[in-house]
Amino acid sequence: MTPAFEKLLQELKRLPGLGFRSAERIAMHLLVEQPEALEGLMESMGEARIAVRRCDTCGNIAESPKCAICEDQRRTAGSLCVVEHVPDLIAIERSAAWKGQYHVLHGKLSPIHGVGPEDLNLQSLKARLESGEVTEFVLALSNDIEGQATCHYIQEEIVGQRPIKVTRIGFGLPSGGGVTYADSVTLRSALEGRREYH
Amino acid sequence: MTPAFEKLLQELKRLPGLGFRSAERIAMHLLVEQPEALEGLMESMGEARIAVRRCDTCGNIAESPKCAICEDQRRTAGSLCVVEHVPDLIAIERSAAWKGQYHVLHGKLSPIHGVGPEDLNLQSLKARLESGEVTEFVLALSNDIEGQATCHYIQEEIVGQRPIKVTRIGFGLPSGGGVTYADSVTLRSALEGRREYH
Repeated sequence: MTPAFEKLLQELKRLPGLGFRSAERIAMHLLVEQPEALEGLMESMGEARIAVRRCDTCGNIAESPKCAICEDQRRTAGSLCVVEHVPDLIAIERSAAWKGQYHVLHGKLSPIHGVGPEDLNLQSLKARLESGEVTEFVLALSNDIEGQATCHYIQEEIVGQRPIKVTRIGFGLPSGGGVTYADSVTLRSALEGRREYH
Repeated sequence: MTPAFEKLLQELKRLPGLGFRSAERIAMHLLVEQPEALEGLMESMGEARIAVRRCDTCGNIAESPKCAICEDQRRTAGSLCVVEHVPDLIAIERSAAWKGQYHVLHGKLSPIHGVGPEDLNLQSLKARLESGEVTEFVLALSNDIEGQATCHYIQEEIVGQRPIKVTRIGFGLPSGGGVTYADSVTLRSALEGRREYH
């Protein structure tokens, strides 16, 4: 293996879900077997790096200050589904069970991993709430202790005494599991069966 | 998902071993969670694209006209281990069972997939043979019909009547399996137990 090959291999091995064998296979593919795939990949990476940003309003990926969902007039304004990550949003969109808007926290509170409220996309959640546009929160966070803590924090510190309906999705989400990998039926029943959060 | 995100996702899904979920996870990682990883990956891709080439002599990856193995004076010159792909070479190097040089075909004969002799790195194999430097071929090709056909072609069309010792690795390689994924002990016994090929 050459130094430049080795360096690319190290970078590939850092990607989530890629082990040594997969990274080596991909590096070979890009450098030896299909160099034209490397061109295409680098081009789309360069384009996406410039084009893709966070929606100023909800934190979803966007190519303009507002994402496609925040721009969509057909979505129920004021009803926010709060999720940890963009893939959670994508999974819920795939289930077609939510017609409101979203707010992406980009994480959940986790003292063990050093993630505090200031590391999450909570300032803009507060701003949306203060603008008076929000009437309902659906907390679609993980069914684990950190998800629970994040729900609690939002209820206590963000919502407080404001007259906002706060529910948490519950039925169907397996204990310890996240939203991304749930199937559409499970997500639909979880959204339909949401309960008052207090 | 935005258009640029979607385009990157499509490129990632084309990589070997990546399914929809893995590609989505990597795209999220690169565009949302760890944008600095995207920088590093693009940089190493750009460097490798320029630096990494094929060795003019053996077809291995190299950063100069000759690869590190062909340049290495301690390797037994004239003894060539013929492999299908660079990862095969890497796997054999890892086993430390071969002290000679290599020749990488970048494939095997496969009429079904439209791979003929002109698609393999055979011209330079012939050139090495004609230069008189070669005394021995070890055919480390897959233990399947296409590997068999490639061995046969090399014996008949490349070696012909020349006084060259041709062996094929055999013991230990499971039927239908390739060289890359064999463990070092298996590869060592296969190299030690090589048989006359005719």
